[in-house]
Amino acid sequence: MLSDCGTRDWYVASIKAVILSHAPGVHVVDITHEVPPQDVMAGAFTLAAAAPWFPPRTVFLGVVDPGVGSARAIVAAQADDRWFIGPDNGLLSLCFQRAKRLEAVQVTNRRYWLDPVSPTFHGRDIMAPVAAYLVRGGSLRQLGLPARRTISLEVPTARRRSRTIDGRIVHVDAFGNLVTNVPGDWVSLRQHPRHRIMIRCAGRVARMVSSYAAVEAGQLVALIGSLGFVELAVCNGSATRVLNAARGDPVVVTWSSGAPMRRIE
Amino acid sequence: MLSDCGTRDWYVASIKAVILSHAPGVHVVDITHEVPPQDVMAGAFTLAAAAPWFPPRTVFLGVVDPGVGSARAIVAAQADDRWFIGPDNGLLSLCFQRAKRLEAVQVTNRRYWLDPVSPTFHGRDIMAPVAAYLVRGGSLRQLGLPARRTISLEVPTARRRSRTIDGRIVHVDAFGNLVTNVPGDWVSLRQHPRHRIMIRCAGRVARMVSSYAAVEAGQLVALIGSLGFVELAVCNGSATRVLNAARGDPVVVTWSSGAPMRRIE
Amino acid sequence: MLSDCGTRDWYVASIKAVILSHAPGVHVVDITHEVPPQDVMAGAFTLAAAAPWFPPRTVFLGVVDPGVGSARAIVAAQADDRWFIGPDNGLLSLCFQRAKRLEAVQVTNRRYWLDPVSPTFHGRDIMAPVAAYLVRGGSLRQLGLPARRTISLEVPTARRRSRTIDGRIVHVDAFGNLVTNVPGDWVSLRQHPRHRIMIRCAGRVARMVSSYAAVEAGQLVALIGSLGFVELAVCNGSATRVLNAARGDPVVVTWSSGAPMRRIE
Repeated sequence: MLSDCGTRDWYVASIKAVILSHAPGVHVVDITHEVPPQDVMAGAFTLAAAAPWFPPRTVFLGVVDPGVGSARAIVAAQADDRWFIGPDNGLLSLCFQRAKRLEAVQVTNRRYWLDPVSPTFHGRDIMAPVAAYLVRGGSLRQLGLPARRTISLEVPTARRRSRTIDGRIVHVDAFGNLVTNVPGDWVSLRQHPRHRIMIRCAGRVARMVSSYAAVEAGQLVALIGSLGFVELAVCNGSATRVLNAARGDPVVVTWSSGAPMRRIE
Repeated sequence: MLSDCGTRDWYVASIKAVILSHAPGVHVVDITHEVPPQDVMAGAFTLAAAAPWFPPRTVFLGVVDPGVGSARAIVAAQADDRWFIGPDNGLLSLCFQRAKRLEAVQVTNRRYWLDPVSPTFHGRDIMAPVAAYLVRGGSLRQLGLPARRTISLEVPTARRRSRTIDGRIVHVDAFGNLVTNVPGDWVSLRQHPRHRIMIRCAGRVARMVSSYAAVEAGQLVALIGSLGFVELAVCNGSATRVLNAARGDPVVVTWSSGAPMRRIE
Repeated sequence: MLSDCGTRDWYVASIKAVILSHAPGVHVVDITHEVPPQDVMAGAFTLAAAAPWFPPRTVFLGVVDPGVGSARAIVAAQADDRWFIGPDNGLLSLCFQRAKRLEAVQVTNRRYWLDPVSPTFHGRDIMAPVAAYLVRGGSLRQLGLPARRTISLEVPTARRRSRTIDGRIVHVDAFGNLVTNVPGDWVSLRQHPRHRIMIRCAGRVARMVSSYAAVEAGQLVALIGSLGFVELAVCNGSATRVLNAARGDPVVVTWSSGAPMRRIE
């Protein structure tokens, strides 16, 4: 489960309770419920970052749903060997884009919903019982007709030039680290054994290091983060605050001869 | 489980650990641990909002216990097909009030407690092992003598007049939404097909809409919330801050001819 | 699980996902993920406070790891009838110190790790799969060579003098309560039936009481906390803020004849 409901109210518990009522014994794992309210892009990024680590046959339920009660559709899908359900607003789309095989349906068959359905809480009244149905091995096709198109968010792609890489910040995590779209293997030791790699962002320059252990508190650095992309970070601080930078801002990677990059373990 | 212990310390984990030690394999679900410290009414409301969605035979443990170590009793009860345990301070009372069949006991039999009992943490040392005992199918009557009376919180009831409804704010959720005691079906489309429904609160007037999808950011609106009662909300904002309104404040619903209310799905 | 990762990002979920992928059906319990970032001492204290309540054979995973990517070792251990894994930075040491029987190894055998290993997230890539291996009944000795020495944090010990006890604040909880190292049984009723017990800290004096129930809001008091040590607390407030006191600050316990201490239940 991933949502923007927070953990202070009964919302998340109600969703879990409905799932447990319809699929006794299921193991519900929280990804997070602290997606910034209605920030579909942040939710999509976080879901896509966590999903690959879960075992096959996991059912993912995403509830970041600013359009609840409007005409927006609800989509359920099998993407490779995992199942997904959520509003058709792009929340699931970064997971869909990575799939080799994708089958998606519009969730319209009220047989698997609670009755009545609250106009403000489809997470509990539609998505939770449908997620439970999928956990129990239910068939996508029972839920509704195939969805020809689902709404897809675009994460920009970094571009390699002769002596630079042009990228963008694509996510800011809770610690203020700035995740870019520059793949880690474009700036790794093997490709640039004798170069010093620098990342420019918001008028500042960060040097590439291999881990936080090499860094002093307060220092702005770049490193290959745990998602495999270049991240900008301030050791014991917040890069988003230090740089006053946000999602969408450009970054430029350059390299020059000089001391070699520290070895990446 | 519902508590005001927060999730930063070892308190909640200690309670869960005791439950798991005494009832291996039990599935513990968090409702919330972020009830405002010692706010029994907020805890009672949140518990009552979540409880109906859980499956029959669920055991609910509530730990909002400002009187811990005093003479306040601990109560365990069966309310219809669910079990409850918590301090006898009203925390469980909104669930008890809804029950058709209620059997409550004072928890006094030390045989099911940990030994020793900390004077500041009955949640871990008394309620957790007793909850585990109930999960394992234990009998209420083993825990202590019947409780003739338990402390009951009063949630005021809305009143219908000829052209208005007088209600009150009964809860403020973590997003700042103001939940009232005005039942949604008193203001639904079927009853008022040709009227514009307005809710007055703290000198402001909110128009009734059917869902957030119809609303612009920053707009104050009223809608039938997911608990089935009228709520005041500010789209992408906090109604409690915008209105400077809190639990207990009055609201007045009026309706007049005009454009019909948008259809409720 | 205990960490300083917070619950807003995908970090904790990734760790749990790896555990569940390698040990299907395991029950993962959160102690907390809100240890102050990189505060190994606070993490060690919280882990040691929660651990004794868990059932035998529990595997504890601690991820407060400021040295990730450096030469710091990873340690796995059996301490009496529980298992532990985490960075060798003292995080697990308070649990190790209490054990009657301790067997620890350096985690160096890559066979049980994910491949590749991110230089910034050993929690997910090394500790999670090793924890799963231990849950499944794996052998410590398969993980690496015995660790002759592990890094140990020192919690100072209180000292008894003829008419005073000299202690220190050893932890500040999320409510601002100040946990000292003065054992509760040194100041209990049985030892001092006719004395008034006072605790001095940061220029203020707190009277010993038996529970919060005896106290008015805003009052500074001392009481025997749920860990069995003397704590300083402000009823409905924060002792750390009121006293401007922090971990390491000294406290002095004195007693004098006068009204007897209130009876501890």
